[in-house]
Amino acid sequence: MSKIQRSAEEYVQGILAGNRVVLGQAITLVESTRPEHQALAQTVIQQLLDQRQGSAEASQDSGHTSQASIRIAITGAPGAGKSTFIEALGMYLVEQGEKVAVLAIDPSSAVSKGSILGDKTRMERLSASEHAFIRPSAAGTSLGGVARKTRETILLVEAAGYNTVLIETVGVGQSETAVHRMTDIFLLLLLPGAGDELQGIKRGIVEMADILAVNKADGDRVKLANQARAHYLNATHLLPPKASGWAPVVLRCSAQEGTGIAEIWDAIATCRSQLMKNNFFEKNRRQQAKYWLEEAIDAGIKAAFFGNPAVRAQLAALEPEILAGRVSPFAAAEAMLHAYFKENPS
Amino acid sequence: MSKIQRSAEEYVQGILAGNRVVLGQAITLVESTRPEHQALAQTVIQQLLDQRQGSAEASQDSGHTSQASIRIAITGAPGAGKSTFIEALGMYLVEQGEKVAVLAIDPSSAVSKGSILGDKTRMERLSASEHAFIRPSAAGTSLGGVARKTRETILLVEAAGYNTVLIETVGVGQSETAVHRMTDIFLLLLLPGAGDELQGIKRGIVEMADILAVNKADGDRVKLANQARAHYLNATHLLPPKASGWAPVVLRCSAQEGTGIAEIWDAIATCRSQLMKNNFFEKNRRQQAKYWLEEAIDAGIKAAFFGNPAVRAQLAALEPEILAGRVSPFAAAEAMLHAYFKENPS
Repeated sequence: MSKIQRSAEEYVQGILAGNRVVLGQAITLVESTRPEHQALAQTVIQQLLDQRQGSAEASQDSGHTSQASIRIAITGAPGAGKSTFIEALGMYLVEQGEKVAVLAIDPSSAVSKGSILGDKTRMERLSASEHAFIRPSAAGTSLGGVARKTRETILLVEAAGYNTVLIETVGVGQSETAVHRMTDIFLLLLLPGAGDELQGIKRGIVEMADILAVNKADGDRVKLANQARAHYLNATHLLPPKASGWAPVVLRCSAQEGTGIAEIWDAIATCRSQLMKNNFFEKNRRQQAKYWLEEAIDAGIKAAFFGNPAVRAQLAALEPEILAGRVSPFAAAEAMLHAYFKENPS
Repeated sequence: MSKIQRSAEEYVQGILAGNRVVLGQAITLVESTRPEHQALAQTVIQQLLDQRQGSAEASQDSGHTSQASIRIAITGAPGAGKSTFIEALGMYLVEQGEKVAVLAIDPSSAVSKGSILGDKTRMERLSASEHAFIRPSAAGTSLGGVARKTRETILLVEAAGYNTVLIETVGVGQSETAVHRMTDIFLLLLLPGAGDELQGIKRGIVEMADILAVNKADGDRVKLANQARAHYLNATHLLPPKASGWAPVVLRCSAQEGTGIAEIWDAIATCRSQLMKNNFFEKNRRQQAKYWLEEAIDAGIKAAFFGNPAVRAQLAALEPEILAGRVSPFAAAEAMLHAYFKENPS
């Protein structure tokens, strides 16, 4: 961390100029748990938001400049080929002149030191491109913490001009809900053949998907890929309609062979236009901001309450009684709240 | 409320003696929002819990006497015949020598002054029985408040010897989740013919059900009832297995004609034995107690935080900025938490 000795202004200018080294250091700042790093990170983020706002007004933009960006969640069961797919989609976009950032949410990386995206060699071509910025998942002890760092990192990479942000998750846990809350479009990568019960994909994740893509549709797996497509086409028809009004599409691709990637991007672009046209895009980003505000407040007040020594002592004493049905949970909560607010009158 | 001038001891003795007038007054106390009534209600509940515990130990019981009771959620779409069904099931149980309490959770009753169960004439025979105790939904401005009052009322009626507790909900909202969190068994009442999309029943509610009963299986509706049964039998087979290990059953009945009621009670009894045998019954009640503790703490600390004038002023000023993407939700949360805890150091 010794290199983080820049001023907020230096970070802001470096990021706006697209300096990848400064961008990387700013993300490290966001990921740091040290209070002085956090304070500096917040200053940098606020200045970048102010800058964006200013340039939006100057250019007679719609006012919400982050609409210029698109944030795409990419998930799928282990083995679905997420890294290969992101490499293929990312290279396709870079060749179209887009600047692409690849982030990840993987709470398990705290243990495995980055089980996904840690190894950039898995995206050899993309990581060599000047128009792509790849960053492994932040480490953290909680999904909430990791999610927060990722959401702030999105702001930084967008400020640096990476307007297509791909966010990978591992596809087997609660990370999908978090990533769904910070992206515009949700892409689910599937394997040929097996239904979701065999792919280990929870129904709730299928319900979140805007685009479903059966990967590895190549060689003698084409027939199995068609079966998977038919299965998921049927499954999506049975789902309740989405709040966005978008009807999910099911496509095939081979990230290995590079087939179907353009069609997937077309579907993403069509989805984006529709969501912008019916104002869901903007509405959804506002709802997401509200959600993260509530989450952050919730986490903050709970940390204060449960971190209070008197509360902890009471909880330890009362919990067995509550669980055994000998004390009413409401009475116990009342007692703990009373003790807490007596100490901290509000 | 003028009649509530009894001491805690008088309430406790009256309830334990099965005095219905005292029981009704104690419930009114639980439902009151006045702090002195709440304090007295909590004292009464704690003394009743202590008594139960004492008598359980004396009788070499398993330690958790509330296991002697069974709490059953009864829900269904409007028109499914919930009142008639509860009357039929309740009378069947009373005739078997059981003591039955009928409660309700209906947050809308705050507006409608008790849209369900308010009219006891809808359960004419049951309300005339000395072995049944019927209480309309508590009024309240929030589902959380109504749910809490209902959960405390369960403790009171059980202490008065009503060991079969039926809790009705309206079947169209979030009340089902709340009632699912305070009952042992979940019964969903269905109409002949239509599938759940037509009955207005959310998939999540079907997933909660242990017993599905197609009501009104009489006259020329028998064929339609069979169709509904086949539909839901298929639907339950497609659902993921329950944590309790219980496989939901789908039955038919006619509450009007009194047919199928005994079979439904048998299914409930079988379900209860299985859940007791595999310890899910006890485990579930412990989890429920923990859930309500967390809910009550959550509600308490949020009320204090968002009730703080400085926080309210900040929120009003910051929210439009956050929604428009001009301020990071995390930075805003941080600022609000900082202001709050500066005022209320913890």
